[in-house]
Amino acid sequence: MERASASAPASIGNVAVGFDVLGQAFDAARDHVTAVREEAPGVRLGSVSGLVDRLPDSPRTNTALAAGEAVLQAAGNPFGVRLSIHKGVPLSAGMGGSAASAVAGAAAVNALLERPFAVADLLPFALEGERVASDPPHWDNVMASLLGGLVLAAAVEPPLVTRLPVPAGIVSILLHPSVETETKAARALLKTEVPMALVVEHSRRIAAFAAGCASGDMALVRAGLEDVLIEPQRAHLLPPLLQVKKAAMEAGALGCSFSGSGPSVFAWAMEGEAAKVEDAMSWAFMEAGLAARAYRASVHSEGARVEKVSETV
Amino acid sequence: MERASASAPASIGNVAVGFDVLGQAFDAARDHVTAVREEAPGVRLGSVSGLVDRLPDSPRTNTALAAGEAVLQAAGNPFGVRLSIHKGVPLSAGMGGSAASAVAGAAAVNALLERPFAVADLLPFALEGERVASDPPHWDNVMASLLGGLVLAAAVEPPLVTRLPVPAGIVSILLHPSVETETKAARALLKTEVPMALVVEHSRRIAAFAAGCASGDMALVRAGLEDVLIEPQRAHLLPPLLQVKKAAMEAGALGCSFSGSGPSVFAWAMEGEAAKVEDAMSWAFMEAGLAARAYRASVHSEGARVEKVSETV
Repeated sequence: MERASASAPASIGNVAVGFDVLGQAFDAARDHVTAVREEAPGVRLGSVSGLVDRLPDSPRTNTALAAGEAVLQAAGNPFGVRLSIHKGVPLSAGMGGSAASAVAGAAAVNALLERPFAVADLLPFALEGERVASDPPHWDNVMASLLGGLVLAAAVEPPLVTRLPVPAGIVSILLHPSVETETKAARALLKTEVPMALVVEHSRRIAAFAAGCASGDMALVRAGLEDVLIEPQRAHLLPPLLQVKKAAMEAGALGCSFSGSGPSVFAWAMEGEAAKVEDAMSWAFMEAGLAARAYRASVHSEGARVEKVSETV
Repeated sequence: MERASASAPASIGNVAVGFDVLGQAFDAARDHVTAVREEAPGVRLGSVSGLVDRLPDSPRTNTALAAGEAVLQAAGNPFGVRLSIHKGVPLSAGMGGSAASAVAGAAAVNALLERPFAVADLLPFALEGERVASDPPHWDNVMASLLGGLVLAAAVEPPLVTRLPVPAGIVSILLHPSVETETKAARALLKTEVPMALVVEHSRRIAAFAAGCASGDMALVRAGLEDVLIEPQRAHLLPPLLQVKKAAMEAGALGCSFSGSGPSVFAWAMEGEAAKVEDAMSWAFMEAGLAARAYRASVHSEGARVEKVSETV
């Protein structure tokens, strides 16, 4: 193949209760990467479009290029590629923008290979891409953007990354306020020790959430979709968070918290209440004097997808 | 009604990965309590039989009597009762012996009421019984003995206690070695702070276990059924534990750890491998010079059960 396009969705890291172990695809926005095969070895940046018109142009600094390079290397560097990137997922939003590019880059290059890897096997290459943005790379956004839906990192060594069943009719709402938080700073402020009583409270919630999603028990989903571990330590980074959350819950949300380390805030709601929840969250941000862009997508969502493959450029 | 008998099964606290939030009924042994209605108010001890021939005779010191008293009080003390107890579940074994008596006591007295409580609503009364053995009472054994199967305490205030789906064909093996450990001592030695990295490792396992049980994904069950939080802190209390565990895993167990705070050790295995796992665990105890009694029961199991109700004594 000479030319292949792939896309990958935004994602919500942690999904409130799953710090560093859960992620979900959020198919309200996607990054698209087109890979063109070239004689010269290595990975180069082609055009950049969409939300940005400039991106770093080296595999050392660009997650899509780094992921593409990792795929090529694993295949024995049979050729070189030029990657053009269309950014649909905002960066620094807590929406997994760097992961979406890494996943789309890996998937596009993979589609050029004579014997491509299975999509799930692209995880280590996409993680190499994400490493450019965050070292060590966090799995949550990458695995969710790759596999779609709600994804659990059940084991790391060897990896066991599994898409979990989720009841039908659940929608994610995400509000991206016009402020920035730094993932590294948000992580650095976390306490390194957790009281045992809090570990137990966190355990019961993640067990309830995982079992509730898998068995369709909405009372368990609702009881579990709450972050008692991390959110209390980070809430001050986004002063309106608690009002936005209160508004979401009063409007019928199943749960509400930071997307990843923020600044975006997401909620889960049943389909019929999603518009009301979105409105309530938007109003709460507005009342706090913050503009926020709203997105909405079903929790049932596709991960990485090869869009088009052709034998000629 | 004048006379009612009820029974409740043994139970496995924590189920390895679910410290203080998961419990499972273990229907290889049951306690039976017979309640006889009497004019004189209050709760008295009748005969004692089975594994013991003597038990404390006051609601201050006997879990069945205390639970029966709590049920009567909630019903407005319409009459008094005499409770005869047949112990099938060993005490101080880590098999939920005190909880089984409390649950059976509550269920037997409840069956005498003109308008009995629903079985699930007996939880607070059974917990009052368990409080005699352990204050504050731990929920895991009580809720499992009451509801049967694998039970999650998803929330405490207000309580949300849910029996989780479990794949068919899973068997629990339990070995009760001839040593004693003290629940209070086993709890006192636990660290009060947990490193965040360990919290994440624990989270991924309990999420995998809960989702795996609910969705029938045995790879998740296997990845999740491991206690990285508590077992390492308690393993020294039972020196052969690690050999017994190794033997169980090599024989095909899905997981193996302390039952509650020990000294009993349990494993999960698929039906076809349960005998092999039991043998391997027995041999490992024997090689360590400890006699151990083996029990086996399906994870699918009944909780509290009213055995017989009659209008005459």
